[in-house]
Amino acid sequence: MTVKDLSHHLSNEAKRRNASALKTAFKYFGKDNIVFLGGGLPLSDYFPWDKITATSPAPPFANGIGAKPTNEADTVITEVGKTTDLEFDIPLARSLQYGHTEGQPELLDFIREHTEIIHKIPNSEWDVIVTVGNTQSWEASLRTFCNPGDFIVVEEYTFPSAIETARALSVNFAPVEMDDKGIIPEKLDQLFTEWDPAKPKPKLLYTIGTGQNPTGSSLSNERRKAIYDIACKHDFIIIEDEPYYFLQMDDYKKNSDEPAAVTHEEFLAALVKSFSSMDVEGRVVRLDSFSKVLAPGARLGWIVAQKPLLERFVRLHEVSIQTASGFTQTLVSGLLGRWGQKGYIDWLIGLRKEYTIKRNFTIDSLSKHMPSVVKYEPPFAGMFFTVKIDAAKHPKFASEFGKDPLKVEAAIYEKSLEQGCLMIPGSWFKSPNFKDHNSSEIFFRGTYAAVALDKLDIGLERFGKAVELEFSS
Amino acid sequence: MTVKDLSHHLSNEAKRRNASALKTAFKYFGKDNIVFLGGGLPLSDYFPWDKITATSPAPPFANGIGAKPTNEADTVITEVGKTTDLEFDIPLARSLQYGHTEGQPELLDFIREHTEIIHKIPNSEWDVIVTVGNTQSWEASLRTFCNPGDFIVVEEYTFPSAIETARALSVNFAPVEMDDKGIIPEKLDQLFTEWDPAKPKPKLLYTIGTGQNPTGSSLSNERRKAIYDIACKHDFIIIEDEPYYFLQMDDYKKNSDEPAAVTHEEFLAALVKSFSSMDVEGRVVRLDSFSKVLAPGARLGWIVAQKPLLERFVRLHEVSIQTASGFTQTLVSGLLGRWGQKGYIDWLIGLRKEYTIKRNFTIDSLSKHMPSVVKYEPPFAGMFFTVKIDAAKHPKFASEFGKDPLKVEAAIYEKSLEQGCLMIPGSWFKSPNFKDHNSSEIFFRGTYAAVALDKLDIGLERFGKAVELEFSS
Repeated sequence: MTVKDLSHHLSNEAKRRNASALKTAFKYFGKDNIVFLGGGLPLSDYFPWDKITATSPAPPFANGIGAKPTNEADTVITEVGKTTDLEFDIPLARSLQYGHTEGQPELLDFIREHTEIIHKIPNSEWDVIVTVGNTQSWEASLRTFCNPGDFIVVEEYTFPSAIETARALSVNFAPVEMDDKGIIPEKLDQLFTEWDPAKPKPKLLYTIGTGQNPTGSSLSNERRKAIYDIACKHDFIIIEDEPYYFLQMDDYKKNSDEPAAVTHEEFLAALVKSFSSMDVEGRVVRLDSFSKVLAPGARLGWIVAQKPLLERFVRLHEVSIQTASGFTQTLVSGLLGRWGQKGYIDWLIGLRKEYTIKRNFTIDSLSKHMPSVVKYEPPFAGMFFTVKIDAAKHPKFASEFGKDPLKVEAAIYEKSLEQGCLMIPGSWFKSPNFKDHNSSEIFFRGTYAAVALDKLDIGLERFGKAVELEFSS
Repeated sequence: MTVKDLSHHLSNEAKRRNASALKTAFKYFGKDNIVFLGGGLPLSDYFPWDKITATSPAPPFANGIGAKPTNEADTVITEVGKTTDLEFDIPLARSLQYGHTEGQPELLDFIREHTEIIHKIPNSEWDVIVTVGNTQSWEASLRTFCNPGDFIVVEEYTFPSAIETARALSVNFAPVEMDDKGIIPEKLDQLFTEWDPAKPKPKLLYTIGTGQNPTGSSLSNERRKAIYDIACKHDFIIIEDEPYYFLQMDDYKKNSDEPAAVTHEEFLAALVKSFSSMDVEGRVVRLDSFSKVLAPGARLGWIVAQKPLLERFVRLHEVSIQTASGFTQTLVSGLLGRWGQKGYIDWLIGLRKEYTIKRNFTIDSLSKHMPSVVKYEPPFAGMFFTVKIDAAKHPKFASEFGKDPLKVEAAIYEKSLEQGCLMIPGSWFKSPNFKDHNSSEIFFRGTYAAVALDKLDIGLERFGKAVELEFSS
């Protein structure tokens, strides 16, 4: 299957980018018969790191992914010098040198194989490049596709930092309506069908499809397929920002014990389908990251897309980030190489188990502590849960609050801080140009990722009390 | 000394940037009496690196900075776990977590102290932030100060990648004339004095003041002072891109032995003055980097500037790179902390010695191999040397080449490749809007950084032969 030519969606900036003239000389670099005096590279002899070593847990992580490695059997040692004999190790003489803007080949190989296992992309022209994480990848995407004044479609509640990135670039927002299950496909189709032709038609949809921030919702396979078809019909690009993809969880069971063990096959079969996995036309740009599955401070991610689009990202990276840190690339490639694809899946299964436990605990805790006015659903993926409240049920909704749900939201936020718990008011996540639904429902976003379970329970008890106090006032 | 308010130089994009609304909630993060359910941070228990270790050479590097550490006395071991007791070590639980966009405090402390030792900045409102290297810092500078259509002043021959970065952002170029010693201050003053008021006045000067790329020239202290005064007079910002600052060398001596040992005091006194060191008004943005002094692949640098300007860079970093890799920050801070400021100066002295040897060898080799039509001067700093040729002396200058020096340049480039040596033609470095001087002089840029000395000698012999063949044709 050949992908579509999407070059008409490139921004003026992306079209203006040239490869440096110096690159034409670099074709002579490393040739035996040429003494290459063309490039200002320091000798790797002068890199003051002879060897780096890292201690990590070993698959299958039988005691959990949070267990500290204590003996030879449960420990993996990554050790890489300036040179190396192992095929997945990136020697420091290369990773700490200039070059390989698209990422070091050993790391790219692992990520490509992983992508193949997970997504089975139905076109033959996809590839991956290494990035410094999805925050940068999203900015790079905006700069690659959008001119100032262009519109993008965003979920009506979304990640404020993603909005701020676009706003600074003078990009405009067309929010699409959501329900408990995320974007409503019919509303998305309607948005494009009824688009005012006096305005530039949105070139892209930005979606956090799995474990959405802030709602915690995840798009079903059916909705994803419907949305992909709408993208083909109206010719736009889907940017799927998927840091939480591998924080998918088992079904919620009340007061459950540990989740049951799963096989690799069961794990893979249970994963929701990515937009990339249905991308016959090459119109998906998938932003993937190690931030939530390994560590945010690694500043390492990757983009999956059709090659001609990736080439434009590489041109941008050449004159900005250059590439991800060589230490990071050597350490991550070294670890993943030693774990292998199977060991990495073991890790992801371990992660699923941890988050399932956290999510289940959260729902149990909510059911203990929340007054009946508070509604909630167990999220399927990600780090966030939401609690919903019908502000109209506040006894002073009409009097003190003048029927304004946002005033009730602010009152609950303050009361909750007084009680000693902080959750983020849902209105803080409203996209610019948010269209009011005339609903009296408000919500708060919480997370179970960052705190120990006992503390989470205390926090939710305090929040419940705050709502109770507020609604009985 | 209070710095000038330079907010009138900010770009519209930089002015538009807001701190995220979520940040207002983060003031409650870490407070004892609040259970903070606000942020999506993974638990550091799940970072699969329990400990990282690096083997490095130890000061005073008596056998040279390129010597491999072999025994306890000449080896420094950096070892950092998720927690740590040493004040300069950045624990992995923090460096691999989100946060600290401006850089980790331990690393910032070392860089601040280093900056104090080297530059003694004469205003009280400077600070530093960590970056992922000068390529990104230059792009961030352009985005912080320039609107599309704005002009910037650049050296008439400059780094093509720096030009490409600005060109993609629709920035225009006003090149300033140079001689063998870099920017001619009178020409810079003239450029501003005679500026066409119908065009936006340039907001900034971009200069590689030390070991300039491609000319290899370095600005004297006197020129720097003159240029700084011109910046104050005409109210523009100086962006000094200084990756080569510590590749300053001893005076060239023909067929010399090893350079004499120098004390720390002698080393520091011999350094050329930076623009930052004379920045009473706070109009210098210094782009500094570990790329040439430690390793390019670390992707680690820093910016020195007045705090209100740095704050705008931090807002940009929050929605793009976030910050430098945590592995890099932990490893570099760990090494520098163990070396100490004095050990780091030892390293820089060792670097000076290595580059002095390379530069001296290059000049000796040129004097052996170049025909008399080729002129050269020993560079004072950096990785590059240039050879100059008066194209008018080519026997076929008027006939075959139609008095076009660029055609002679192209002929020498081709002939040199045939002989097996690649140096970059000087015309490839011409800034857009380059004003022709009607000179018949051409030049080629070579480097002594990237190759072993014996190979360099072979390359220069080949280049000399190519010129000889061409000029006797």
